[in-house]
Amino acid sequence: MTDTASPGIPTSSVASPQPRQDIEAILHPRSIAVVGASTNPKKQGYIFVQLLKEFGFKGGIYPVNPKASEIAGLKCYSSIKEVPRPLDYIISAVPAPLVPQLMAEAQGMGVKAVHLFTGRLAEMGTDEGIRMQREAVAAAREGGMRVIGPNCMGVYNPGHGISFRLNFPKRSGPVAFLSQSGGNAIEFVYRASLRGVFFSKAISYGNASDLDESDFLEYFTSDPETRIIVCYIEGVKDGRRFLRVLSEAARAKPVIVLKGGRTKAGARAVASHTASLAGSDQIWESLIKQAGAIRAGGMEEMADMVVAFRYMEPPRGLRVGVISGGGGGTVHSADICEAAGLHLPPLPDEVRHRFKAHLPDTWYAASNPFDLSAIVSASGGELTIPLAAQFMAESDAFDVVIVDPDLEFQFESPDNQDQARALVENLIRVKQSSKKPMAMIIRPGDVPEAWRWRTTMELQRKAWEAGFPIYPTMGRAARSIYSLIRHHQDR
Amino acid sequence: MTDTASPGIPTSSVASPQPRQDIEAILHPRSIAVVGASTNPKKQGYIFVQLLKEFGFKGGIYPVNPKASEIAGLKCYSSIKEVPRPLDYIISAVPAPLVPQLMAEAQGMGVKAVHLFTGRLAEMGTDEGIRMQREAVAAAREGGMRVIGPNCMGVYNPGHGISFRLNFPKRSGPVAFLSQSGGNAIEFVYRASLRGVFFSKAISYGNASDLDESDFLEYFTSDPETRIIVCYIEGVKDGRRFLRVLSEAARAKPVIVLKGGRTKAGARAVASHTASLAGSDQIWESLIKQAGAIRAGGMEEMADMVVAFRYMEPPRGLRVGVISGGGGGTVHSADICEAAGLHLPPLPDEVRHRFKAHLPDTWYAASNPFDLSAIVSASGGELTIPLAAQFMAESDAFDVVIVDPDLEFQFESPDNQDQARALVENLIRVKQSSKKPMAMIIRPGDVPEAWRWRTTMELQRKAWEAGFPIYPTMGRAARSIYSLIRHHQDR
Repeated sequence: MTDTASPGIPTSSVASPQPRQDIEAILHPRSIAVVGASTNPKKQGYIFVQLLKEFGFKGGIYPVNPKASEIAGLKCYSSIKEVPRPLDYIISAVPAPLVPQLMAEAQGMGVKAVHLFTGRLAEMGTDEGIRMQREAVAAAREGGMRVIGPNCMGVYNPGHGISFRLNFPKRSGPVAFLSQSGGNAIEFVYRASLRGVFFSKAISYGNASDLDESDFLEYFTSDPETRIIVCYIEGVKDGRRFLRVLSEAARAKPVIVLKGGRTKAGARAVASHTASLAGSDQIWESLIKQAGAIRAGGMEEMADMVVAFRYMEPPRGLRVGVISGGGGGTVHSADICEAAGLHLPPLPDEVRHRFKAHLPDTWYAASNPFDLSAIVSASGGELTIPLAAQFMAESDAFDVVIVDPDLEFQFESPDNQDQARALVENLIRVKQSSKKPMAMIIRPGDVPEAWRWRTTMELQRKAWEAGFPIYPTMGRAARSIYSLIRHHQDR
Repeated sequence: MTDTASPGIPTSSVASPQPRQDIEAILHPRSIAVVGASTNPKKQGYIFVQLLKEFGFKGGIYPVNPKASEIAGLKCYSSIKEVPRPLDYIISAVPAPLVPQLMAEAQGMGVKAVHLFTGRLAEMGTDEGIRMQREAVAAAREGGMRVIGPNCMGVYNPGHGISFRLNFPKRSGPVAFLSQSGGNAIEFVYRASLRGVFFSKAISYGNASDLDESDFLEYFTSDPETRIIVCYIEGVKDGRRFLRVLSEAARAKPVIVLKGGRTKAGARAVASHTASLAGSDQIWESLIKQAGAIRAGGMEEMADMVVAFRYMEPPRGLRVGVISGGGGGTVHSADICEAAGLHLPPLPDEVRHRFKAHLPDTWYAASNPFDLSAIVSASGGELTIPLAAQFMAESDAFDVVIVDPDLEFQFESPDNQDQARALVENLIRVKQSSKKPMAMIIRPGDVPEAWRWRTTMELQRKAWEAGFPIYPTMGRAARSIYSLIRHHQDR
């Protein structure tokens, strides 16, 4: 299943029409060998094999382990030499000292790329680790092979049946994630997918001994499946090239960058993680700005930004209409939105009058933010809240509308679930019949009541499936929408 | 059930030994009449009655509604006059125009207080609303009654069987919440309780027509059941008195204040919400600081701060030892902690050597932040991660230890649940055998897989029941722990 509708993203691209063919081929191998495949289902050396089966990889899958005859139900080979041809791609899960032998054996087989899941190379900071990594790359190059890694999770390409994590979605989408960290890729892809963000590809590239951030960024710039690029980067080897490539990428599509190692302790962690030089934070700040990319401050903010860029048409300005629950909720929403940089104009009289005609008894609550408490108790909130949203969306006074229907308040007991469901469905209808960018707040489903959890997850999903950007709090919505608007205003 | 162990809170109080007797009596009525009780179980006029039963209120519960004979299984009275004596407390759910009659009828019955859930009075901004509210207060005073509200949810006093919300906990705790907004009280009490924060009392006081923030704050200052005070305030009528009362409160216990209406749009919302004057944000900033209270920036931050003040011994300094998952996770943790104001000293050699003795193969990962990826794959993470936490907790190099065991990473499949459970249990053991302040990160349970959600909720609960402050992200932990440390350093 592919997910391509992305309202906020230009459909034409100024980048080169053809993706980098070398990387395109690497990401679409005809067959894959997992060397160092394990018989232990808890080990990644087993899971890599299992994943190719589960994600429906169509080509040959060849586990290699001299001590096993079968792994994950597939025939196991005792050596890479015995694997059927063609062999395009190798995943190495062998320990670092066995990498030279693997590289030697793979020579002349026509292998295009080796993904070194193998770690404990240059990131160890030892002479031996650095030497082994350098030799592995040299041997690969000699045999015409490119290297991804070492010390990384490698490639997630759901459209081609490749994954490195069982809880990743099988569905593709328009976002590419380029991550120097495997752990961050694991967290980000899973968590973002719960908010309706799906991926064209995600690549964890670790020590970047051969193929590096600039190579993959060039590829994503020209990849027609990718319409938003997200990067987690700890350090680059060639800053000048990276600036050029990043600038080209940002001219073609939105590029969101999270830079790891901003602080002293962070830079120390970067050195032992991927043997990278973190570089000065000020230089990174100006590099990202100069390139026209968008900087994220952390993992959570990065996910929030992607939700905005993926699901929201860029609003034409900063004027926001807000609907939220409870008097304190409206005050809080107003404070949080203005602190984030958005503007809350007063509700125009024309909107107040439209509302008065429909709900003569409670129109006094019509303001910006719009306090839904009064209109909920007056008559069914599942009708009145969407009506308020519609009137705001149809008014020229607002560039964007954020609705917090306060579902948790509707959820005092399981009896209210149908009402909450109708409310979300009616809001979806309003959004679909309007051209105004809109977002919705649904508070997190980490609650102990099973019915509350289930309904929350169901409504979240229903909302983003219908194209609604969903946020757990007003603050996170406001900050990421502000980023989206500023990015488009700056261009 | 009462929950009184609060490590971070002084057990002796410098405040007056006796709580304000008038408010103490109001909060512990012998009987309660709900006037305007409804037969519709979805209406708050019904729910108030139901709640008194469900929360085990021991005194008389008297629904009043001339059109009903029974409400929520209790005998219903046609007028307040017919209710048995003594009648200490009235909850008014009648429409605003009926309040004068209620006040007249209640005269001379010995009623101590009337909680006006009734809204649409002064907050309407109309002459009529303001007049009706003024007259209601005058009539109450004349009859020797105090007023809570109008336009508020009233009192939550779980130890005395009084609540205004079905999903509030029946268990009491050491935190008092004073909220000018009913909606914020509803959200805060429920959400905080999921993180192990329970309440002595929560009071939603709305328009503050009679009893106001200063009265309740005086009460909480001297209330022996309250050890932390949290306030959501939109505006005060007597700023001089409030500063004095807030200063006294902050001398006795930690007081966390969220000020609603910081921005222009927020102040506008405040006026229509509780008819308050929001006041200048700068004045509030200096008032809170001068009083020695702690300012929260939003609802989420306020909850995070309460978790720190409730569950953490104040660390003696800013030096934090961090354990987190994945190389990128350690980089991110380091950046986020230092950006929050904490310091991450390098791991002392002595700790590295202790670790080397136990895990000679993977001690290279021993750093600060401590990258748990290597030690998890080396041998069972349920043993090695707690060992790393123990060594950090026992080192003089750190004032506080934050552990992100990356449970989500352990949770790739349901098969790993027992391991995740053992990991959390072992971390709890380390915390309980150490005097070092510690916190744990458990990512939110708003996930679609039922087993993952259930185990996450179970482990969150297990952790805070054992006294562990729990945060959904490293950033939220770091920022609230920083607030706790700075507050104690400033004193």
